[in-house]
Amino acid sequence: MAEELKALIRNVPDFPKKGIVFRDITTLLSEAPQFVRVVDRLAEECSKKNPQAILAVESRGFVLGGALSYRLELPFIPARKPGKLPWNTEKEDYELEYGRATLEVHTDAIKRGQRVVIVDDLLATGGTALAAAKLVEKLGGKVSGMVFLVELEFLKGRQCLKGYDLFSLVKYATE
Amino acid sequence: MAEELKALIRNVPDFPKKGIVFRDITTLLSEAPQFVRVVDRLAEECSKKNPQAILAVESRGFVLGGALSYRLELPFIPARKPGKLPWNTEKEDYELEYGRATLEVHTDAIKRGQRVVIVDDLLATGGTALAAAKLVEKLGGKVSGMVFLVELEFLKGRQCLKGYDLFSLVKYATE
Repeated sequence: MAEELKALIRNVPDFPKKGIVFRDITTLLSEAPQFVRVVDRLAEECSKKNPQAILAVESRGFVLGGALSYRLELPFIPARKPGKLPWNTEKEDYELEYGRATLEVHTDAIKRGQRVVIVDDLLATGGTALAAAKLVEKLGGKVSGMVFLVELEFLKGRQCLKGYDLFSLVKYATE
Repeated sequence: MAEELKALIRNVPDFPKKGIVFRDITTLLSEAPQFVRVVDRLAEECSKKNPQAILAVESRGFVLGGALSYRLELPFIPARKPGKLPWNTEKEDYELEYGRATLEVHTDAIKRGQRVVIVDDLLATGGTALAAAKLVEKLGGKVSGMVFLVELEFLKGRQCLKGYDLFSLVKYATE
């Protein structure tokens, strides 16, 4: 399945900056039967982690997260860029592949002890996923796993996410 | 159903600026049974418009759009803020409630004659939805309808969207 999906992902050289090959999943999302297969497969992996909620990372993570919440009938929790969530938030700063960023989650979005699966389209350096995990834990939740559509293995995101149960569907060993 | 959903939407005064009451749907998204009902209901309305693809507007529109694409087994097309899509795009500038903005869609995301439903969480002044519709049409597609979770009727978004087939689930007549 991974190789078939890879054939649907577009490689865009020099985006967002020179020397980076961007893996563009929009060409996969527009192939409906494959998108459905992706969601079903990720849902299966989520289920194994026995979650009580899905936390998805803005923006592309929302596409998968929304579909997974629907499919698994689990609460959808958005992790957003600063200033987007209207109510009280917990914040976490982090390094990402091309700079620094901040992630926010509403302080009442996670219940004490709630088991949360973190969903994003891409695992790169792991900075975003780690920030999301810290937010879940700060708010009293438990990270029961992380699920990604694409993993850029050469960026070694898994190293900074040790101790978390990770799954990715499509892996790129080299740039 | 609309009144039940309204009870789950949080009203945040003075966001994003003084005098505005922000309708926060995150509290609804975190109620899984209601989120599933919302998606099923919107899917039913989408189906009536006989679409061949779902175009969703970044970011909150992605949550509903992802779930609807999955549910209806239709291609997912993202409309994003400038600079986010990695490939060739068509752009459309527009006015929105709190300023100006630009929306982009990949030029190959829509096929000639393809019937597209536009999905977003919120219909406010209609500027964003109109920009999305123009993009669909510029790229040779046909807007078969628009579907929203929330409509702020007092902002009269429908006036600038005349000729389009609109559906919204939860309506606010006054601020």
